[in-house]
Amino acid sequence: MKKYDVIVIGASAAGLVAAITARRHYPKKSILVIRKEKLVPIPCGIPYAFGVVGTPEKNLIPADDTMKKNAIDTVVDEVVKIDPKAKTVTGASKDEFGYDSLVLATGSRPVIPPFPGVNKKNIFAIQKDVPYLETAIEAMGKAKSLCVVGCGFIGVELAEECRRRYPDLKISIVEMLTHCLQLVYDEEFCVKAEETLKAENISLSLDEKVESLEGGEYVEKVKLDSGKEIDVDIVLLGIGAKANTELAKDAGLEIGLTGGIQVDRYMRTSDDSIFACGDCAEKVSFFDGKPSALKLASIASMEARIAGANLFSTHRVNMGVIGVYSTVIGDCAFAAAGLTKAQAEAKNYHVVEGVAESINRHPGCMPGGEMLSVKLLFEVGSQVIIGGQVNGAKSGGELINAISACIHQRMTANDIATFQTGTHPALTASPIAYQLVNAAEVAIQQMSA
Amino acid sequence: MKKYDVIVIGASAAGLVAAITARRHYPKKSILVIRKEKLVPIPCGIPYAFGVVGTPEKNLIPADDTMKKNAIDTVVDEVVKIDPKAKTVTGASKDEFGYDSLVLATGSRPVIPPFPGVNKKNIFAIQKDVPYLETAIEAMGKAKSLCVVGCGFIGVELAEECRRRYPDLKISIVEMLTHCLQLVYDEEFCVKAEETLKAENISLSLDEKVESLEGGEYVEKVKLDSGKEIDVDIVLLGIGAKANTELAKDAGLEIGLTGGIQVDRYMRTSDDSIFACGDCAEKVSFFDGKPSALKLASIASMEARIAGANLFSTHRVNMGVIGVYSTVIGDCAFAAAGLTKAQAEAKNYHVVEGVAESINRHPGCMPGGEMLSVKLLFEVGSQVIIGGQVNGAKSGGELINAISACIHQRMTANDIATFQTGTHPALTASPIAYQLVNAAEVAIQQMSA
Repeated sequence: MKKYDVIVIGASAAGLVAAITARRHYPKKSILVIRKEKLVPIPCGIPYAFGVVGTPEKNLIPADDTMKKNAIDTVVDEVVKIDPKAKTVTGASKDEFGYDSLVLATGSRPVIPPFPGVNKKNIFAIQKDVPYLETAIEAMGKAKSLCVVGCGFIGVELAEECRRRYPDLKISIVEMLTHCLQLVYDEEFCVKAEETLKAENISLSLDEKVESLEGGEYVEKVKLDSGKEIDVDIVLLGIGAKANTELAKDAGLEIGLTGGIQVDRYMRTSDDSIFACGDCAEKVSFFDGKPSALKLASIASMEARIAGANLFSTHRVNMGVIGVYSTVIGDCAFAAAGLTKAQAEAKNYHVVEGVAESINRHPGCMPGGEMLSVKLLFEVGSQVIIGGQVNGAKSGGELINAISACIHQRMTANDIATFQTGTHPALTASPIAYQLVNAAEVAIQQMSA
Repeated sequence: MKKYDVIVIGASAAGLVAAITARRHYPKKSILVIRKEKLVPIPCGIPYAFGVVGTPEKNLIPADDTMKKNAIDTVVDEVVKIDPKAKTVTGASKDEFGYDSLVLATGSRPVIPPFPGVNKKNIFAIQKDVPYLETAIEAMGKAKSLCVVGCGFIGVELAEECRRRYPDLKISIVEMLTHCLQLVYDEEFCVKAEETLKAENISLSLDEKVESLEGGEYVEKVKLDSGKEIDVDIVLLGIGAKANTELAKDAGLEIGLTGGIQVDRYMRTSDDSIFACGDCAEKVSFFDGKPSALKLASIASMEARIAGANLFSTHRVNMGVIGVYSTVIGDCAFAAAGLTKAQAEAKNYHVVEGVAESINRHPGCMPGGEMLSVKLLFEVGSQVIIGGQVNGAKSGGELINAISACIHQRMTANDIATFQTGTHPALTASPIAYQLVNAAEVAIQQMSA
């Protein structure tokens, strides 16, 4: 039996980053990553493998190269057992390895709702698995009518990518909430996204639940509880994900309230030698410390940087998940960080918003100008920022990270309004019109009114 | 004599923002802006008026519209006298106005070095004055050989814009420092900028001083102190700017060590009823509190937001200038915030840098991918960030503002390495490769080595 100082199980965003971080912080430790999949897809890139990227093989994390460059051993095997007392893990191959510190980065798998008929052919969930995705994309190439169930990020991105690749495909999306992307954006941005989808000839059934999936061997119809029926020959499920915790449970580790592996602020599980990070780990909200079911590759990577650094000496603390998102819908960036207005109100915050919109060039006739709109949410008593949303030009994908920094640091509206920003005619709005500081000013005006 | 609660002198980045901010914070106060120029150019857009924007008339701050929308009175007149005892200002027109609070936003004017021959025709400084700029651009249209003196932002931007508009123009830049943009970027980025300029057939004379400007009525030659001579028929001076402080001096206000109007952290001058902001005001460094000669529209706008809010009640504090810059050279964004390595070392900081480079998409084959490189500087003892530079994709123009937020908040390398960032295949690098957090990780590795 070979023994390693560190073993990481999983090689997606969490596992890979945990291993690299361990290497950075502990240059002399031996590190092994055990992963199940020969090929590791980039999780956020999967919808694009259905479209512009073309195939799952072009959407891979360069796991082996990265390991080699970082002097990390790697084995493709499925860990089937952890023995926390003996400090060993056993693979399906029967190979056994000893560890000093173990990191669980076992990820998540898609939720498959118990719809009657969900096991018919041509119904695919978004498995992070290359051969499975290849089968789904092959089926998509022959399809005439697609129904996407779930209008969150994956649903929207899949529908749009399929629209671009298959201009004649009939596409519909079914969503049980009132709006598309409702858990991430305030209503006005959700409505904008819906309008874009409709203009792309993607039909939306909002506020509708799937009752059953009908057909013979292959799916033929999506039946909704309103009685509506959609004729289809392929269905993609983009509903959400569920932590992979079987190994942890079998090893006797505590499981948290949302079903993830329970961890403390150092990413340590109930066993001091075992850490967990990424989709498999339980999370709490940055705002109120309550359990949070958020699962994002960027959160996985943050948690992995904490777990990897803390393996042999505590360096880093996880203050909880903020939720920072971005996507492109139509030709427009949609990005968000922190709480939406509805979420903030549900947590009983007294919220004020400030919105500022401007073209991202100055003067406006500079080439490449696009509108960019920023909305910030503040708690009135403390004037601390609790959320932000960005819509418009693609540079919004980086601007949301400035907003994320403001949220992390619990900056007040005054801090943001007087924050020194870099601006340039060919890159941003003018310093007079700069959206981030003006949105804070607008909010302050309302708080003092 | 009409009396106003607030009078602002000047309507560029500082004056306009001070007036709008006063309106936002004091909805019931009467506000008058007095400005000298009928048309107010966007200061950072001036180099682009020589190129892609085409004319100074397309590069204007919409001063009158903005005033009207904000219920601010406006007068075009040159204030020639302030009486701080009587609390009045007098225009060249002899019109007199009374004030309760006065804001000086009189800006700066270009430095005209005392080169022999500097008064010859076809030698232009970058005056923020539309008729003057029109004359310069008209002369440029007839020129065959341009020499730009000064290779800071304005010099580089002017040279590139003239290259694009006049493909046959001979263009050279003379700079007395060793590198182009040396006060803003570390050497590797300066060299990259220089290579881009050379590839655009712009010849650089670095480490060279102008000795004299030769010719008859019109300039014909730039003589350097190395003996080198450059044949020209037009010269643009892009050397720096000098605070406009005559009015303040005549009114008996204190002047600071770099020649600006002395102000406290609330932007108040030595007279309690008079505030100053923007290029005319003295500044101190965010880092060591020493006098700083930085002059930027984004700083002007920040100071104006402080001055405008503080006019009748103290709300906001100016902790000093960080210096956040961006530009585009070739097709590449160059952005920086805080101290360069050379500046930090001159201040006796023990500095460590971390660099991370990645394509700004994931997977790399996503459309629109460009390299984006981030360099962060930390002080070793505290691990606090003191500077950052970004080079590559245009989204770097917003990413620098995330770095600026980190600097404002004195975030440590650990804070930045575990900061939750939004990432998306069509907008940014992957969470694994995200440059900002990885640059912090690289720096930490060196600090603990």
